[in-house]
Amino acid sequence: MPLHQFFLFLAIILIAARALSETVARFGVPAVIGELLAGLLIGPSVFGWIAPDASMKLLAEIGIILLLFEVGMDTNLHRLARSGIKPYVVAFVGFVLPFVLGYAVSTMLFGLSSLTSMFIGGTLTATSIGITVRVLDDLGKRQSDEAQIIIGAAVLDDILGVLALAFLYQFAIEQEISIQSLGEVSAYIILFMILAPVFGKLIAVLIDHLDQRASTPGLLLTMALSVTLLFSWLAHAVDAPEIMGGFAAGIAFSQHFGFKLPFFKTNSTLFKPSPKLAHRLEEQMRPLIHTFAPLFFVMVGISLNFSEINWSSSSVWALAGTLLLCAIVGKLAAGFFINEPRANQIAIGLSMIPRGEVGLIFAQLGFTQGILSGELYAALLIVIALTTMAPPFVLKAFYNKYRQTQ
Amino acid sequence: MPLHQFFLFLAIILIAARALSETVARFGVPAVIGELLAGLLIGPSVFGWIAPDASMKLLAEIGIILLLFEVGMDTNLHRLARSGIKPYVVAFVGFVLPFVLGYAVSTMLFGLSSLTSMFIGGTLTATSIGITVRVLDDLGKRQSDEAQIIIGAAVLDDILGVLALAFLYQFAIEQEISIQSLGEVSAYIILFMILAPVFGKLIAVLIDHLDQRASTPGLLLTMALSVTLLFSWLAHAVDAPEIMGGFAAGIAFSQHFGFKLPFFKTNSTLFKPSPKLAHRLEEQMRPLIHTFAPLFFVMVGISLNFSEINWSSSSVWALAGTLLLCAIVGKLAAGFFINEPRANQIAIGLSMIPRGEVGLIFAQLGFTQGILSGELYAALLIVIALTTMAPPFVLKAFYNKYRQTQ
Repeated sequence: MPLHQFFLFLAIILIAARALSETVARFGVPAVIGELLAGLLIGPSVFGWIAPDASMKLLAEIGIILLLFEVGMDTNLHRLARSGIKPYVVAFVGFVLPFVLGYAVSTMLFGLSSLTSMFIGGTLTATSIGITVRVLDDLGKRQSDEAQIIIGAAVLDDILGVLALAFLYQFAIEQEISIQSLGEVSAYIILFMILAPVFGKLIAVLIDHLDQRASTPGLLLTMALSVTLLFSWLAHAVDAPEIMGGFAAGIAFSQHFGFKLPFFKTNSTLFKPSPKLAHRLEEQMRPLIHTFAPLFFVMVGISLNFSEINWSSSSVWALAGTLLLCAIVGKLAAGFFINEPRANQIAIGLSMIPRGEVGLIFAQLGFTQGILSGELYAALLIVIALTTMAPPFVLKAFYNKYRQTQ
Repeated sequence: MPLHQFFLFLAIILIAARALSETVARFGVPAVIGELLAGLLIGPSVFGWIAPDASMKLLAEIGIILLLFEVGMDTNLHRLARSGIKPYVVAFVGFVLPFVLGYAVSTMLFGLSSLTSMFIGGTLTATSIGITVRVLDDLGKRQSDEAQIIIGAAVLDDILGVLALAFLYQFAIEQEISIQSLGEVSAYIILFMILAPVFGKLIAVLIDHLDQRASTPGLLLTMALSVTLLFSWLAHAVDAPEIMGGFAAGIAFSQHFGFKLPFFKTNSTLFKPSPKLAHRLEEQMRPLIHTFAPLFFVMVGISLNFSEINWSSSSVWALAGTLLLCAIVGKLAAGFFINEPRANQIAIGLSMIPRGEVGLIFAQLGFTQGILSGELYAALLIVIALTTMAPPFVLKAFYNKYRQTQ
C-alpha cells in the first residue's frame, strides 16, 4: 500500500474508533463495543472503505501485545496465587465444555464430519483475552477479585486455544496427532511462562540501571518495548500465542514482581519489586497503548465480514443459534465449577464468553482449508460477533444490578 | 513478513539504535550518528540481518512525520518571521548552487548526458530536515537564533527537493517539463502550507473542547495523531512532501500559534495560542516520537547499502570526491549569502549539508530507471553517507570552539 494511503487509512481507523467508542460510552456502553462497531462500519461489512491489510494488522498486533503487557504489569502474582486452582478450573471447563458441546451438536444434530466438527468445537473454545480485559477495564472492574480469576483463566484459555488450533491444523493436514509433540509443546510453553518473567526481571533491573545513567532520553520505554517484542517472538518460537510474550514481559516489569537470587546474598535487594520503575514505565507506555490498542479492536471488527453471510439462509440461522447456545452455556457453566459467591460465578462465566480474534482465526483457517463450508463459516461469524458484542452489555447490566452485593 | 519475524526485526532495530546512539553519545558524538551506524551495521552494508521492508518503512515514515510534528510544535512563526527573507535565501542558494555545480561537473568534467547530470544535480540539492533537526537537538541548539533560519530553510529546501524530483522524473519519462504544471503545483503547495495550519488550529480547538468532556482516555493524543496523518496525506495530494503535513499539524497545535477570526468578535479568544494544550500534547507525543523516530534514522542507514559499492574502482572515488566537494561547497556557501555574524553563517551552512533520505530517493530512482550507472549510484551513496555523517561532528567541534561568541 502506498505511504499516503496507509496514513489516510490509519487516520480513518483512529477517528472512527474514537468517534464510536466516545458515542457508545456516552450511553454507558463499554468503549470497546464502539471500536468493534467502527471496524464493522468502515470494513467490508458496511462501507467497505478499509480491507484487512498486512501492515495495518502488524500495528494492530502491536496494540494487543502492548495491552497484554499492561495486563501483565497490573498482575499481582501473589494475589493470583491466592485464587489457587480456580483459574485453572475455569479455563479447563471453559475450554472442554464448548469444544465437546460444539463437536457433539455438529456430528449428531447436523451430521457433519469429524474433522469439521472438531474445527467448529475449536472455534468455540478460546476466550478473547483482549476483549475480556477491555470490558473489565471499561466497567472499572479490572482490579476486582473476580477479575484476577478471569484474567488468569483467560490467559490459560488462550494458550489452550492456540494449542488446539496448532494440533487441529496438524490433524487436518496429516490426519494424525502426535501425543508426544503435544507434551513437548506444552512443556515448552510452561517453561516459557515460568522462565520469561524471571529472565525479564533481570533485564528490567539492567534497563533500570542503564536508564538512570543514560545520555539519551527514552531508553526505558524503547528497551521495555524491545523486551516485549523479543518475548513475543520467543513465545511464537515455543508455539505459544504471541500475546503471551507481552504478558510475560509485563509481569517482569510489574511493581508486584520480585524475587531473591540464590547464592547472591549481597544482591538480595536487587531483584525486589520496583514500583517507581513500574510507575514511570506505565506513564510512558500509556500513549502507545492508547494509540495502538484501538487498532486491534477495529481490525477485529473489520475482519468480521458480514457481507459474506447469506442472511436469508435458514440453515445458517439454525447452525448459528445452536452453536451460540453451546458457546454461551459452555463458558457460563465454567463459572459454576468453582467455589465462589453466586454473583462472582456469574460474572466470571459472563466474562469468559467473548470469542473475538482466536475464534476468527480458527474459523478463517477452517474456511480457507475447505474444512468449513460457506454456511458453517457464516454461522460461526454470527456466533463470534454475538459472543463478542453481547457480554459487555450483559456484564454491565449484571454489575449494575448486583452493585450492592459487590 | 510473518508477525513474529517482524517483532524480532523491530526489537533488533530498537536495541541496535539505542546501543549505538548511547555509545556514541558517551563520546560526545550526536546520538543520531549512532542510529545511522546501527542501520549500516544491521543492514545489508555489514551484517545483512535486516533488509529494507515495506512495513518497517511505514513505521519509519510515521517516525519522521511525528518528528516534524514536534518541530512544528516548537516553531514560533513570529520568531521565524523575524528572520525575514533569510531562510528563503539560504534555501534557494542551497538548492540552486549544488544543482548547478553537480550538473556542471557531470557534463563538463565527466562527459555525462544531460538527463543523468540533472539527476546527479538533483541528488545533491535537498537537505535532510530530519537529520538536521536531530543534530541541532543532540547539540542542544534547536532553540537558538540560527536554528530558526536553518529549520525554515530546511523546510523550504525539502519542498524544493521534492518538486525537483517530481519534475525530473516527469522529464525522464516524457522528455519535457510543463512550466504550467510546475506553477500549479507550487501554488497548491503554498496554499497548503498557509491553509493547513489555520484549518488545523480550528480542529485543535475542537479537539481540546472534546477532550475536556471525553468519557474515554487518550482522545487528545489519538486525534492529534489523526490530524497529523490526514495532513500528511493531504500534503501528498498537493504533491508536497508528506512530512510537510506533520510540520503543518505541529504548527496548528503549537503553543505559539493563534489568530483572530474575522467577523466573529465574540470568539476572539477562542483561537488564541494555548500553551496548556500544547504542553499536554507534547508530553503524550514524546513516547511515540522516542519509539518511532529512531526507526527512521536506522532505516536510512539500512538503505545506504555499502555492499553495492565497488570500493576498488578509482572512477567511483573520483566521482564521489568531486561531487562531495560540490555538495559541501554548495550548501556551505548558502550561509554566506545572508547578513549574519560569521559564526552563524558557518553554522547555518554546515547544518544544511546533511542529505540523507531525499538524496537517497533521488539516487535510487535514477538507478532503478537506468539513468544512473552502478558507478554513479555508488559515488552518490558515498556522497550521501559522508554529507550525512560528517556535519554532526564538524558542527559540534565548531560550536565547542565558538562557544564564547554564541
